[in-house]
Amino acid sequence: MNVPIHPIMTQSFAVIDREIGTHKDKFSPSEYAIVRRVIHSTADFEFQHLIRFSPNAIDAGIRAIRDRVPIITDVGMVKQGVVNLLRKTFDNPLISAVEGVEVALPGKTRTETGLIQSYEKFPTAIFAIGNAPTALLALCQELENASALPALVIGAPVGFISVVESKAALARSPINQIRVEGRKGGSSVAAAILNALIMLALERESEVGSRESEVGIN
Amino acid sequence: MNVPIHPIMTQSFAVIDREIGTHKDKFSPSEYAIVRRVIHSTADFEFQHLIRFSPNAIDAGIRAIRDRVPIITDVGMVKQGVVNLLRKTFDNPLISAVEGVEVALPGKTRTETGLIQSYEKFPTAIFAIGNAPTALLALCQELENASALPALVIGAPVGFISVVESKAALARSPINQIRVEGRKGGSSVAAAILNALIMLALERESEVGSRESEVGIN
Repeated sequence: MNVPIHPIMTQSFAVIDREIGTHKDKFSPSEYAIVRRVIHSTADFEFQHLIRFSPNAIDAGIRAIRDRVPIITDVGMVKQGVVNLLRKTFDNPLISAVEGVEVALPGKTRTETGLIQSYEKFPTAIFAIGNAPTALLALCQELENASALPALVIGAPVGFISVVESKAALARSPINQIRVEGRKGGSSVAAAILNALIMLALERESEVGSRESEVGIN
Repeated sequence: MNVPIHPIMTQSFAVIDREIGTHKDKFSPSEYAIVRRVIHSTADFEFQHLIRFSPNAIDAGIRAIRDRVPIITDVGMVKQGVVNLLRKTFDNPLISAVEGVEVALPGKTRTETGLIQSYEKFPTAIFAIGNAPTALLALCQELENASALPALVIGAPVGFISVVESKAALARSPINQIRVEGRKGGSSVAAAILNALIMLALERESEVGSRESEVGIN
């Protein structure tokens, strides 16, 4: 697999590298690849202070992408933001939780219902929440007594009501997570994190590929 | 038509009203409805300083939505961000320019090609650019010697390369426009502007409806 990086993206990354200053050194190379892609998709350098990685989050995310684990998004915009790159690369099943819901569970929104039903069906999936704090809260509640855990949760809902609380609930959970603290986040941010992970998974694959050819495993 | 506003959105708007301070008074009520929806979808108050409206932009946008004029987006994410509200309300034709392109024009990206071809087909459409500055630049170039003009251009590409230049080109054009100055913008921002316009078009419709019943036109 080989996905050429568009020259404009390379130039954009060079601008971000120049302007971000010393904060670049606070991140591992993989973490920085994710932070930089989020800044690229928002032109908002504040995200360097907001993104949190649990210790194994990136490795777990990369492994899950390479293992073709399903990716569940809360809303269609996050799905739309990753479908092109995913189809050209690992082609994991990609599901927008809200889309499959005919009738909401009693007292729940359609997005919450979709998240809960997707978790029941694919408990070890990657979950990417870019919009609905209620969906992230519902997922965290499901995880409290769960035996099977998601490979990774990307917690990036945006807004003013229940958003900070939903991220605090995720932070308290022992699940592998990439989290955007505070009120900021959004579909573009969640999609950027996923797209950066897909690119990291591609790099890892080509590294493993060349190592394997060197030692004659191929 | 009646689209109930979700209680969480009403609460979010109340938080924004409280926190935005006196800048609220810089905008007409319709302009503020658009600014507030963008802040709601990004949790970024900086947008109050970035959004610009040409004098007739909002009225022209509302009229075009009510007249079921086609809405052309540069990328699928912007389309995905408005499709649900649009289908429940005015149901205008909604086209993602990049999606219809099989082969790019020589020297053009697929998004540029899509925008140019969409403009040729629907010159009086609403165009909403949330991603690709090249698409906005291509559109501005098409408009230089055009006889038929778009009803409205929403100029909100995001990023570090050609973005500010593309917005400057739009600012120089006499077209009805809602523009996000600087590097910021994005699919969520363009979709928020469109969704706010749809809600304004709904309000206008119900006002006209009640005025018309009062004077017995119905």
